[in-house]
Amino acid sequence: MTVSYDTTTLLHTLYLIAIVAEAMTAALVAGQRQMDWLGVMLLGCVTALGGGSMRDVLLGNYPLTWVQNPHYLLLTGGAALFTIAVARYMHKLRNIFLLLDAIGLVVFTVIGCNIALALELPFLIVIGSGMITGCVGGVLRDLLCNSIPLLFRAELYATVSIVTGVLYVGSETFDINHDLGMAIAMTIGLTLRLLAIRFKWGMPKFIYSGNMD
Amino acid sequence: MTVSYDTTTLLHTLYLIAIVAEAMTAALVAGQRQMDWLGVMLLGCVTALGGGSMRDVLLGNYPLTWVQNPHYLLLTGGAALFTIAVARYMHKLRNIFLLLDAIGLVVFTVIGCNIALALELPFLIVIGSGMITGCVGGVLRDLLCNSIPLLFRAELYATVSIVTGVLYVGSETFDINHDLGMAIAMTIGLTLRLLAIRFKWGMPKFIYSGNMD
Amino acid sequence: MTVSYDTTTLLHTLYLIAIVAEAMTAALVAGQRQMDWLGVMLLGCVTALGGGSMRDVLLGNYPLTWVQNPHYLLLTGGAALFTIAVARYMHKLRNIFLLLDAIGLVVFTVIGCNIALALELPFLIVIGSGMITGCVGGVLRDLLCNSIPLLFRAELYATVSIVTGVLYVGSETFDINHDLGMAIAMTIGLTLRLLAIRFKWGMPKFIYSGNMD
Repeated sequence: MTVSYDTTTLLHTLYLIAIVAEAMTAALVAGQRQMDWLGVMLLGCVTALGGGSMRDVLLGNYPLTWVQNPHYLLLTGGAALFTIAVARYMHKLRNIFLLLDAIGLVVFTVIGCNIALALELPFLIVIGSGMITGCVGGVLRDLLCNSIPLLFRAELYATVSIVTGVLYVGSETFDINHDLGMAIAMTIGLTLRLLAIRFKWGMPKFIYSGNMD
Repeated sequence: MTVSYDTTTLLHTLYLIAIVAEAMTAALVAGQRQMDWLGVMLLGCVTALGGGSMRDVLLGNYPLTWVQNPHYLLLTGGAALFTIAVARYMHKLRNIFLLLDAIGLVVFTVIGCNIALALELPFLIVIGSGMITGCVGGVLRDLLCNSIPLLFRAELYATVSIVTGVLYVGSETFDINHDLGMAIAMTIGLTLRLLAIRFKWGMPKFIYSGNMD
Repeated sequence: MTVSYDTTTLLHTLYLIAIVAEAMTAALVAGQRQMDWLGVMLLGCVTALGGGSMRDVLLGNYPLTWVQNPHYLLLTGGAALFTIAVARYMHKLRNIFLLLDAIGLVVFTVIGCNIALALELPFLIVIGSGMITGCVGGVLRDLLCNSIPLLFRAELYATVSIVTGVLYVGSETFDINHDLGMAIAMTIGLTLRLLAIRFKWGMPKFIYSGNMD
């Protein structure tokens, strides 16, 4: 796979924007739980970097991203702290943050796929690696805030990650330009996520009132 | 230790049945929490494969089972999805699933012990490896469903895993056939678990109403 | 860095006292949740050894401490079990346990820093390694008991770990005796923690009542 220099730079820039956005929305959740400032920073770091960490731990892919790039901790922790100062204005930016979160989802997914592809892992694991990278940060945030992970109940989220991953990895098998395939996968994933938010699309729910206990 | 080909095959077959059963009961728990279909599948995978994953991460035993055998993800995710269709009939199969869960517990335990034995780890860690393999999947399920892990409160469960592990590993030190020792350990463990369910045997509880805060 | 034999022994002795104290306080929390005896032991082990385990898993530093020293499992599990017998007297020892917990915090922090220093990791990761070692055990305890981790809400705790780590690692860069630097860092950290308990010092809280959902 040949990746152009510009694409790598663009993906990395989007990654940095995305981890900042994830840390900032996590900070608001921390504020709803009345956490202290350090708790806000830690929750920001865990949410932004936890998906990639879980992926690397499960794949045995050491060192972890933030161990190699400690400034990511400063960036995400700092973004969370900054959020405390600007929280009162953030509801006005609600739509921008929903957009950034959606961008983060597809960017994290593609990065997670890339890492599993570089390790030459099988297709299903590549898709799983993308999904873990995209979704687990939010799961950890919800666990630490003592709520059932939204992932398992909300609008298309993990689904978007899977669709993005399948399109992206699938495009590799066709004879089309790698960058183009990635762009198409990310655009479709992003569109799907935004439509899902707009029209409250969700997977069907499984409602079971029986009791096996 | 010499393991006969038949035993290995039998253990593997029981393992496959057990992860399917674990995924299906996890799916019902997901349904009680009204998770969406993808959430049901993910909870099924995590519950069925999470114990082995935790063991391998803690022991540094890479690659993880499902990374090497991605079809386990399809099997457990598919079983969870299938559960949605047959949920209404499952309470009639309640006793079968309790039996399968108990079989899973002792099978997971023996497999976990085997992996630690192959790594030539000390006795206590071998027992711990068996218990983690047998019990942690359910702990992760309960955490993701935001309830206190049943493991810490229910009938003999982790205890059964420890008993099974101790009997199995202990039988290695005596001069009896490996397969026979394993069969005895698993049978006693299984019987103990079923009796515990039937007669509601549990470890004594520690009830502390004081306050150290 | 030259560490005197006596210091290593002292640090190790304090470590053993600290994991026993952590296991015992975790046992009381388990009793408040009416866990069974095995659950009490497991929660004791996870709380006492979980911080170091998380650190080693995140840093890829295998084998984990308790895999190499299985008797730590006996020590912490046994301490938790012993707590059941003496629980009724423990509120009289409340202040001693708060002191032991504070000592544990700074000892775990210094040990975590040492491990990251030995791996020649960057400054921020060394501090993070100390904080994870010092704080994550309690986070895991709270997660398994289904409560929002106290770490994110209580008096200075993670902050004390960071201060201790920064002072300790910072003292390395100055031309002072290693043991002296460590002693100063631990004393200041310990004092800060005890003052924080006494005067209910906490980080400012971030209270956000808005809604981004």
